[in-house]
Amino acid sequence: MATHAQRTLSKETPKLIGKEIVLKGWVHKRRDHGKLIFLDVIDRSAVIQVVVNPKVSEESYKIAAELRPQYVVEVKGVVKKRPEGTVNPDEKTGGIEIEAKELKILQKSESLPFDIELSDLELPTLLDNRSLTLRSAKARAIFSVQAAVLKGFRKAAKDLGATEIVVPTIVSGATEGGAELFSVEYYEHKAFLSQSPQLYKQIMVSVFERVLTISHAYRAEPSVTTRHLSETTQMDMEIGFVDFSEILDIFEKVAVSMLTYAQEKCEGEFKEFGFEKTSFGDIPRLTLRQAQEIIKKEFGRDTKEDKDLTPQDEIDICKWGKEKHGSDLVTITHFPTVAKPFYTMPDPGDSGYSLSYDMLFRGVEIMSGSIRITEYEQLVKSIKDRGMNPLDFGMYLMAFKYGMPPEGGFSFGLERVTMKLLGLQNIREASLFPRDMERIDERFSKKTSAKG
Amino acid sequence: MATHAQRTLSKETPKLIGKEIVLKGWVHKRRDHGKLIFLDVIDRSAVIQVVVNPKVSEESYKIAAELRPQYVVEVKGVVKKRPEGTVNPDEKTGGIEIEAKELKILQKSESLPFDIELSDLELPTLLDNRSLTLRSAKARAIFSVQAAVLKGFRKAAKDLGATEIVVPTIVSGATEGGAELFSVEYYEHKAFLSQSPQLYKQIMVSVFERVLTISHAYRAEPSVTTRHLSETTQMDMEIGFVDFSEILDIFEKVAVSMLTYAQEKCEGEFKEFGFEKTSFGDIPRLTLRQAQEIIKKEFGRDTKEDKDLTPQDEIDICKWGKEKHGSDLVTITHFPTVAKPFYTMPDPGDSGYSLSYDMLFRGVEIMSGSIRITEYEQLVKSIKDRGMNPLDFGMYLMAFKYGMPPEGGFSFGLERVTMKLLGLQNIREASLFPRDMERIDERFSKKTSAKG
Repeated sequence: MATHAQRTLSKETPKLIGKEIVLKGWVHKRRDHGKLIFLDVIDRSAVIQVVVNPKVSEESYKIAAELRPQYVVEVKGVVKKRPEGTVNPDEKTGGIEIEAKELKILQKSESLPFDIELSDLELPTLLDNRSLTLRSAKARAIFSVQAAVLKGFRKAAKDLGATEIVVPTIVSGATEGGAELFSVEYYEHKAFLSQSPQLYKQIMVSVFERVLTISHAYRAEPSVTTRHLSETTQMDMEIGFVDFSEILDIFEKVAVSMLTYAQEKCEGEFKEFGFEKTSFGDIPRLTLRQAQEIIKKEFGRDTKEDKDLTPQDEIDICKWGKEKHGSDLVTITHFPTVAKPFYTMPDPGDSGYSLSYDMLFRGVEIMSGSIRITEYEQLVKSIKDRGMNPLDFGMYLMAFKYGMPPEGGFSFGLERVTMKLLGLQNIREASLFPRDMERIDERFSKKTSAKG
Repeated sequence: MATHAQRTLSKETPKLIGKEIVLKGWVHKRRDHGKLIFLDVIDRSAVIQVVVNPKVSEESYKIAAELRPQYVVEVKGVVKKRPEGTVNPDEKTGGIEIEAKELKILQKSESLPFDIELSDLELPTLLDNRSLTLRSAKARAIFSVQAAVLKGFRKAAKDLGATEIVVPTIVSGATEGGAELFSVEYYEHKAFLSQSPQLYKQIMVSVFERVLTISHAYRAEPSVTTRHLSETTQMDMEIGFVDFSEILDIFEKVAVSMLTYAQEKCEGEFKEFGFEKTSFGDIPRLTLRQAQEIIKKEFGRDTKEDKDLTPQDEIDICKWGKEKHGSDLVTITHFPTVAKPFYTMPDPGDSGYSLSYDMLFRGVEIMSGSIRITEYEQLVKSIKDRGMNPLDFGMYLMAFKYGMPPEGGFSFGLERVTMKLLGLQNIREASLFPRDMERIDERFSKKTSAKG
């Protein structure tokens, strides 16, 4: 192999004034100023300004004149303080620049079909050109924040004593009883993609008491909305020996801690793109009925026959929560038992309602959960009552034959959390490679015509 | 809801001698000693001894006499030092015991069908009763170690400046060109389960330069071996601006750091079950040809026509590595180009071989990777040479049109790492709910007969 020069990251350069270094990265912008060419070069740590002066290196100047955005380059040069008046205090490397002595092209790039940094690119453009548009500063910010949300969730869960588990996604039946399942040809058998890690994380309560899992969930939703994907990332916890009031405290704490972590970790991204920090205030807790009363009183819609909140209800309740409680988060509890999956514990005082909860964030549900039924016979009955066959739940039910403590859990949707935290208009912007009815990477319609 | 007593975890009790506390957990063992009943109660933190004396609480004694393993209980009692001579220095709580004042059954358990702690339970028994056998001390140890391996990998990757990404598992085609794909009915379209996060993590090098991802990979292997699963967990990194020699250093560092982290974090589990700590020594690096020469010389088998190592070769080379280099890990490089996927970079000096590498651990491959082709035209040609259609790789190829740096990556299999780290005989023991040809939770044969 060719020998490689020891590389310096952009963010390290301010400490190296006067030193000769080697940078590697992508050309972000080129500006020709009379006899000088200025390059913004980007690597994983920061953007940095490179000055190419033909008096310093004529060869480099010739090469620099060829460069276009996304060319991959190696620059040998000297770190210099920027002249007075050209310092940019908003950038990590805003006080220095690199005077190029040698410039090498590591990889050329075709001309970009459009400016990927434009803020008003339409969603189909963003997605049809995903491998390119993900390189924009905004996309980089979105997915840096997403990585921090993931880490923030895991940190919050581990602080609560949870053990991380890995659960399978190929399953033999519906966990939630719904019809929106993708089927898989599994050798000679029919199998499905999991709708949630629910049954497995519950089983694992009897092993580790408190567990967390990051998993993919699949829903064959035959609709195209701004907040549904066919494949999502779920951040789940399941916790033994808790009651309803304890778990409400726990998930609110996890939400605050996860969002706070992401905001602090990505301070720079929030500042650069004006992402609005979350107002935590005093998180209101409403039963579904209380929420419906507020909707009637404050927004004039009678929704009391509904078994769930509609998207508009969620928007309105969050508006109310922000105004009255200074909180971007609202907890809704006690959904009707019939509207919830079989494992949901009915409220012992009023069995038509259940010990279930959702968390809303700026108008969208980002989390769902409940206290679970842990009595074997009651669980079998609940499965039968919903027209399902307990034989299809053999492995799961076994856990309840042998001593399951009172327990509950919850699941945050990573893409929804990311979307609402950053004020994105469509959940597809919060997924690197979103899956929906119309697309797996490329649009189906486009693919057919390209091949046809 | 019922009021709940403030709960103390077992491991906190040694600091609370003389205090009254409330424990919650599972009955692990009951021993009747004349007028006393001793209970081993287990919670997420530790096992603890509870003494039930009818002179202290007759009611508790009656309840204790009913208890069997896996009953879920709540114990109110006083923390006492154990009498001289009964201290168990091997346990966290071995110096104390709880004198029960009140005992409550939170959930009963059926009688266990067999002793789940037996060390010689057969694999079908372990798997047919997974929801129960996962509660054994050994299973708990295995999956505590697995959680630490995951964390150790993420820590090592983050220390290298990688950003965590989430990639989809529903894909439109084969990434590796193999035929072992599970197909999915995706709305009106045919889709597949991903064989690896390969193409997506490569695309993301152009965004974050260094990425890590934990993902599920699916292989429809029509065979049943001790080291294959249909659904596995992969720990991947992909790194821009590296050459062959650098990435060899990087993945060896990641392996050592990940395994060391898990061993240190799970010191107690390693001690309790006599899991053998890894010998790192000086990790040997061999080309496939060199490995084949050693196999011929030391083990008398001529394998030089083979394009890969056989399972026996892997065992033999690891035996050699342990004896000659004191290392449980061996790196093998330069597999034949034709035997590797299209994205693998041929060795510029000898294009019949490639800049690829596997890592072996105690006789089994646990990692695979390569330097990638990053030149657009070369990549298109490599796809065509393997009889595939570049049109099926549109989104992926786009990343290479717009400046991809030299890059490479690798993928560790979580279950294989766990299996070899703990000396397990079968990979199924290293997966909570293993998927293979014969089973999704329950064996297909069993299921059919139960329903028929």
